[in-house]
Amino acid sequence: MKNTEKRDQQIKQWIKEAAEKLKEYMNEELTIEEKTDPQDLVTNVDKSIEQFLVDKIRTHYPDEEIVSEEGFGDTLTNLDGIVWFLDPIDGTTNFITQRENFAIMIAVYEDGVGQMGYVYDVMKDCLYYGIKDKGAYRNGEKLPSAKDRPLEKGVFASSTHLMTKDEYKNVRDIANTTLGVRMLGSAGLEICQVASQKAVVYMASILSPWDIAPGKVIAEEVGLVSTSFEGETLDLMKNNRAIFATPEAHRQIMDKLKQQDN
Amino acid sequence: MKNTEKRDQQIKQWIKEAAEKLKEYMNEELTIEEKTDPQDLVTNVDKSIEQFLVDKIRTHYPDEEIVSEEGFGDTLTNLDGIVWFLDPIDGTTNFITQRENFAIMIAVYEDGVGQMGYVYDVMKDCLYYGIKDKGAYRNGEKLPSAKDRPLEKGVFASSTHLMTKDEYKNVRDIANTTLGVRMLGSAGLEICQVASQKAVVYMASILSPWDIAPGKVIAEEVGLVSTSFEGETLDLMKNNRAIFATPEAHRQIMDKLKQQDN
Repeated sequence: MKNTEKRDQQIKQWIKEAAEKLKEYMNEELTIEEKTDPQDLVTNVDKSIEQFLVDKIRTHYPDEEIVSEEGFGDTLTNLDGIVWFLDPIDGTTNFITQRENFAIMIAVYEDGVGQMGYVYDVMKDCLYYGIKDKGAYRNGEKLPSAKDRPLEKGVFASSTHLMTKDEYKNVRDIANTTLGVRMLGSAGLEICQVASQKAVVYMASILSPWDIAPGKVIAEEVGLVSTSFEGETLDLMKNNRAIFATPEAHRQIMDKLKQQDN
Repeated sequence: MKNTEKRDQQIKQWIKEAAEKLKEYMNEELTIEEKTDPQDLVTNVDKSIEQFLVDKIRTHYPDEEIVSEEGFGDTLTNLDGIVWFLDPIDGTTNFITQRENFAIMIAVYEDGVGQMGYVYDVMKDCLYYGIKDKGAYRNGEKLPSAKDRPLEKGVFASSTHLMTKDEYKNVRDIANTTLGVRMLGSAGLEICQVASQKAVVYMASILSPWDIAPGKVIAEEVGLVSTSFEGETLDLMKNNRAIFATPEAHRQIMDKLKQQDN
């Protein structure tokens, strides 16, 4: 991809400005709405931050497409050309209830291939990012390749649905073979936990393209495997049941899911 | 209780010194052992920190009893008099795998009643503490009384066993009525999340006296309710299935657990 250095500088600047706006909004009362269900919330801040980022992209890259959570982007029929993925606040419920553990996320893909991914933990002032073939970084420091640890040597990051819905007993049985379950409530930050070797896997049952796209670039740069629960490439045109794991943990999970199907 | 001011200063100083030692040990290789099962680990650092704290208490308060996780304390038959509870590292698995999200914890009880409780998030440099009838604090700033929010208005902090074991489907059904599940992997820090209104409840199925005692003082000072799953007072002579919640969330949980029993 061309101009990644210029894009990298712009994206980092936009994220910085967006985070400053977001912190200002935190002093005001939030307007909260339910989207699909009570566990899927949106606030006026999500919308304002998305609008801010969409405006930046439209100004600087008017010919490129945008896939975004809150509806200010485009409706795509394919991933040809350059496509931006935006999640203004990943972990909106945490933003509302905890005022921490949420992220501003941006990714740039070209013809369906991840080129640049950014996950910014606003309250920790911690920016994870990955650039294709150039590595993944945390606040400018290069992340080492992920050690290929098995399930039994790490913790299992996961989502509410997988831990509470009857149909995912198989996933809970896998989780129970690890050192314990951890749930942060932000897909992007949880993928970055795996990328920075704080967990061996993150599994979630309903991830949207904007939840996946930024972390996927970071994950790939440290040698993690990402697939659907069926072992297929994640599809950034729809919601996915997704696994991000070390190669060994991924093999173990696929074996166990297949055994349970039989 | 007498001398709480002097004790408060001592405890804060001991925690500070213990944290410095702990961070030094983090640069060396850990010795890791399993206790009851692979999700219950201990390291040489847990033991060294406990020994350090036990020595301090034995020196300054030689007539008082100590209940501690790693075996340097006393074997008690009752909670009469002054009893110290120590957990040198709450969240040992996080200490090993994440190098964050663990706490040094100390409590002082008199005749079974919580007088002082300390939960120190080492890597965030964040000290939560509560002193009976004097309030709860985070880094010296008084925590407000907890708003009496119901389950559906907050997140549900919980433990691996409750989310993965077949027999706790009833708890998962309750969790699913909230805004989502969060799991940090440190009972003390999770109780403090409820105390600082970042979750409406923390439930866990196997909490030892040293997991409970420090956070319980903090929880009580902000008006939270803590009981067993049967609604009884937590028993600091044994392991407990414990609930720490807002009064309203606690009522809802008790109703739901009783309905499911019938």
